Order: sequence, then structure tokens, then C-alpha cells
Amino acid sequence: MNFTCQREHLLNYIQIVQKAVATKSTMPILGGIYLKAENGVLELQANDYETAIKCSLPAQVVSAGATVLAAKYFSEIIRRLPGDTVEISAAENKSVKIKSKRSQYDLVCMPYEDFPLIQSLQSGSVYTIPENTMKNLIQRTTFACSQDDTRPVFTGVLMEIENETINFVATNTHRLAFCTDIIENPERNELKVIVPAKFLNELNKIFSADTEEPVSIRWHQNKLAFEFKDIYMETQLIEGKFPNYQQVIPKSFKTNVFVQTSGLTESVERASLLTRDGDYNVVKMDIKDTEINITSNNPDVGAAYEETEARINGEHLTIAFNARYILDALKVINSPEIEFSFTSPLTPAVIKPVEQAVFMYVITPVRTN
Amino acid sequence: MNFTCQREHLLNYIQIVQKAVATKSTMPILGGIYLKAENGVLELQANDYETAIKCSLPAQVVSAGATVLAAKYFSEIIRRLPGDTVEISAAENKSVKIKSKRSQYDLVCMPYEDFPLIQSLQSGSVYTIPENTMKNLIQRTTFACSQDDTRPVFTGVLMEIENETINFVATNTHRLAFCTDIIENPERNELKVIVPAKFLNELNKIFSADTEEPVSIRWHQNKLAFEFKDIYMETQLIEGKFPNYQQVIPKSFKTNVFVQTSGLTESVERASLLTRDGDYNVVKMDIKDTEINITSNNPDVGAAYEETEARINGEHLTIAFNARYILDALKVINSPEIEFSFTSPLTPAVIKPVEQAVFMYVITPVRTN
Repeated sequence: MNFTCQREHLLNYIQIVQKAVATKSTMPILGGIYLKAENGVLELQANDYETAIKCSLPAQVVSAGATVLAAKYFSEIIRRLPGDTVEISAAENKSVKIKSKRSQYDLVCMPYEDFPLIQSLQSGSVYTIPENTMKNLIQRTTFACSQDDTRPVFTGVLMEIENETINFVATNTHRLAFCTDIIENPERNELKVIVPAKFLNELNKIFSADTEEPVSIRWHQNKLAFEFKDIYMETQLIEGKFPNYQQVIPKSFKTNVFVQTSGLTESVERASLLTRDGDYNVVKMDIKDTEINITSNNPDVGAAYEETEARINGEHLTIAFNARYILDALKVINSPEIEFSFTSPLTPAVIKPVEQAVFMYVITPVRTN
Repeated sequence: MNFTCQREHLLNYIQIVQKAVATKSTMPILGGIYLKAENGVLELQANDYETAIKCSLPAQVVSAGATVLAAKYFSEIIRRLPGDTVEISAAENKSVKIKSKRSQYDLVCMPYEDFPLIQSLQSGSVYTIPENTMKNLIQRTTFACSQDDTRPVFTGVLMEIENETINFVATNTHRLAFCTDIIENPERNELKVIVPAKFLNELNKIFSADTEEPVSIRWHQNKLAFEFKDIYMETQLIEGKFPNYQQVIPKSFKTNVFVQTSGLTESVERASLLTRDGDYNVVKMDIKDTEINITSNNPDVGAAYEETEARINGEHLTIAFNARYILDALKVINSPEIEFSFTSPLTPAVIKPVEQAVFMYVITPVRTN
């Protein structure tokens, strides 16, 4: 094996496949990045049996070949080398030579025959969606998932496609985030799968909010694959039954509050300062006339009292929430004003951006005295 | 107690006194900030019995008084309040009211009578030095101190004043940093004390590299105080005998190497990538003709080979160092070229900036096979 390629391009793609490198596996080969140089192309692969990523970039291949290098050292060396290009070669099967300008590294390599090569999905349903739309769907839902691995269904996002509508739904049973958009679905295939939030969060880091580059999504059995540019990312799906989320979303309300997103965010953040070290980071909202009064109380520390202007339609109400749950939702709403809707102090409330109907957040109140 | 002051100014000064707040003390009062409002001035104090800081800022004092507030909550609230000014008042001795715009906080307070008030040093020797000079002396030496509390002398910096010369010396016995400058010393008082590196590092965060504001230094018995603007900072000195550092500094050499600081830094950083996870982060330098060849070797990972151009006067030499120790020194040398001087593979070497004679770094080599 002997090839030369652009260092920046290689580094960029190493950092992408690295997201599928196993860091704590008992199988050392899964901590490696597979490289194959052939016909003017360098292919990189990483596979931890949950996520699998491969990508390819142009290379001047002098002699074809493959190897596996420890991701940790390979990426650090490529990151720090001085030149614009890098030459990688292997004479025998023990080590790989990496050269750039007057720097030279011999890295111990692993047998490429042991690497679990990725078989790209070829059959199954195919959908197409712009990169920034997908990023939006991910950002507005994954945060609502549970971190608790004992109930796997809630560590993933329900991804639902019907006709040209795509829905993302995430919940930890105390709050639920729902986001919807349109998708190209020429074959009118239905989809209803649970995708690990961890995988979606990695996709989110790669996707740009500014480009509408098409992303191709393919579903086959228990796998879902995303393909864009020269990158292929695949995940195992989570098995289990996602709860009927339509049932959870309240349809009518007795109080509708319109409030500035930034003002409410700051008030809740401040009020929660006094209680955030406790088990329950509870803030109380007193909704009446032309304002929301937010209070919190921690006998050891003190009490907070915050007034926020709001337009209120309907009945007065006093209701309490986990401050974290409110702030999480306000953070992903990039609309200057939200609508916060209530029925009673003990039934779920709903937060929505005023401008768009694409996002909805259901939050269960906390019972207080 | 009732006063109003500028929120930004108050926040800035809270963050300064906070450096002397005890975070893990068994005495809760030491986790507090003492406030006293009187005659148009708000004074803040914090004291963990090693470091003591006080500072004062203008305030509109409606009624005088004092209190102690938990630093953690007080600073966070002041940081996040919405207004430009903040009103702080205490009706009784249980809590303090903090108001800004439409936000109001009641913070539980502690009895101010229990706070160990700081008695500023009044007698002793006095010296004056510009803020940026002091920052320079600190930055170029404290990093060389030991972290090991069992030998306290090496966790501090020797601060030596004689006539108008000030020397800072720090060592962990494997390497030694020496920095010198001039100081105003009208009374020609001598000084030779060991100052905790931790305290100097806090000073470093407060001092600006761009201003020559005078800092007044006062020494009395086992205390050293720094006074600048409205801030007074005091530290306990470390007791013990600092080694005779003059003895450690080699006076003559057999090899003098002149090399670009950035080039050497990058080569050593890269070569050490392969060995930095081990116990000894060793890089070997082969000095001959017109270059330094830097190599490192880790049987489990691989080998590095780096060529760096240099001007070499004197004998060829092969010598090994802890890479970290070289990089630490190169980082604080803001001169484009350094002089690296050697006598033999087993005797200490010296790193100096080429332009200025104010900094010197002695480094003991590592014995290799």
C-alpha cells in the first residue's frame, strides 16, 4: 500500500468515521480505522456494531492495499503534521509509514482481515431530505430523550414517515418533543422506527444548518442508513414499541399565554439558580392579568421572585415545573415568541413557537403543596 | 443595610474576592463573601486563611450595615440579573434582599460577626512594580513548580529582591525556571520569601499584560500583600529553605544550538504524541550538523522521527528529555528563537530566549539506553 492525499481532507474524514470507533471495546480492532487505497480512492471505515461509518476521498494511489490503524494515534498525527499532503505506505504487515514534510511516523497496524467490513444497505425503502431540515428535526427532539438505558425505547427518537410528512418524536415520559417537516418519498413508503439519539446527535454534528444538500435515507429491516456526499452512516434501530404519542398531546386548553422566548428563558434560568443543586429543580408559575410570576424557594439558600410580561387569554392559574424541562425546550425554539398553553395545575401543558406549527413540546407539571 | 451599586462592577469584584473563598471548608462562613456598606463605599472580603482578598467599589449607601452571603449563589445571581444596577438590602439578620429591574431574590445570610476580617499589613518593607512586569514574572515561573504538597517548598516560587532587581525562581528538582526584572525599591530592602504558586496564578488571572499600573508589594513576617487599584490581596508565605539555585545553573557548555521556537515546539509535540500516555514521555534529540533529529519510540504504538533545522556550535550530542518539560518552557518564551545549551547527555541543559537575558530554564536530561 502506498498513497498520497490532502491532509485536511483526510483529517476531516477521520474525524467523521471516528464517531463509530469503539473506545472501550474488548476487541482492539474496533478501536481502529480501516483504510483501503485503490483506483485513486482512499476509503475509511469504522464500526462499533451499533454505528458504522464509511467515507471515501481522492488519493494518488501508487500501490493498492489495506490496513487498520489505532484511531486515537492516527487522528492525532494527521491533525498535527506540518504539510498540506501526507504520504502513507506499508511495506510489510507490522507497521505503516506516515510522512509529511520532514516528519515521519511508523504506526503499529492491525490485520485488516479482522476488521468487520461494512456492507452498505442496497435494498429497502429510500427517502430524500435536505441536510438542514434533518438537522432541525434532530436538534429539536433528541434532547427530550431519556438517558436511562434500562428502557431503551426512550433513549431513541421515533422517526415516522407517511406520504411526504416526516415526524420526529422523543420523550422521557415526563416531557415530549414533536417536530414535523416534509420529505421526498416518491414510492410512498411508510416508515416507523426508533433511532438511537446518540446516533442522531453524531449526525447533527456533521450536518450544516446552512446547506440544503440532499441526504438519502434507506431503511432495511433493523438498520437505517444515511448517505450524503461521500459519507455513509448506518445505525442499528432500537427494538420495542414507542408509546402512542398522539394520545399524550392535549388538544384543548383553558389558558393560553403568549410570552417573549428570551424573557421567559432568563427568568426561569435565574429563578432556578437557587434550586438547581437539589433533586427537584422546581419553579412555580403564577399566571394572571398581564404577567407570569415565577418563584422558587430553597429553605437553605433563599427565594426568587421574577416578573415576566405576557399576554394571557383565559383563566388564571398556578402551576409548577421542573425548570430544566422548560429551559430545554425554550433553547431549541428559534422564534422570538412562544405560546404556552395550560388546562389545569395537574395536566400536561404545551409549548409552541408562535410563528411555525412545526414544533410542539408537551410538559408534565410537578405537584406542589 | 441598604445600598445600590453598578452590577458589572460588583460582579467583577465578586469574581476577584471569590478566589479566596474556601470551597471545601468545614467552616461555612469561609464559603461566604463579607459585604460592608458605609460612607458611599461597598467593601467585599473573602478569606480562606491562606489567601485573603478585599476590595471596594462606590455604592449609594442609604443605610450602613454588613452581612455575609454564600459566594456561590451571590455571584451567580449578580451575574444573571437583568439590570445595570442592583439594590441590596437587609431588614433583619436572616436574609438579604437583592433587586434588579423586575427580579427579586432573598438570600439566606450568615452572621457577619463570625467572619475573620482582614487586617491589612501596615508595616514592613514596600516595593513597587508595574502590573505587566509582575504578570510576566509569574507566567514564566509558576509552571515549573511541583504539585506535590508533601514538599511544600517546591510548590512555591522563590521571590528575591535585592536593590532594584527582582528574581522569580521555581523548581520541582527536575527543572528550574528563572526570571528576572527590575523593581522600585527606594529603601533598598532585601527580600527572600517563598510565595505559593497557587496564589501567584490567581494574581496572574487578574493582572493584565497590557497595563503598567503600579502594584505595591508589602512584606511583613510570614505574609506578603499586593495592592493595586481598589484591591488588596494577601497570602501566607511558605516556610522552609529554598535550595541554592545558583549552584544548579550550568555556567559553561560544549554545545550551543539556535533553533526556531515554533518549529521545535511542533516537532516535540508531534514526537511526544506516541509516548505521552506512558509514565515517561521521553523524546530523544540527536544534535548534529545543521539539525536536531527528534525521535520517540513506543513499542505498542510506533515510532516518530522529526527533523528540525538548527544552527549548531560545538560538539555533536544525543540526549533525551521528558517532552512535557521542554514544551512547558517553550510555551512561555515569546521570542521567535531560542538558544538550547548542553554539556553532556547526563548533565542539565539550559533553554534561553535569544533576544532577552531575562529568562532561563534548566532541564535535567533523562537517562536512556
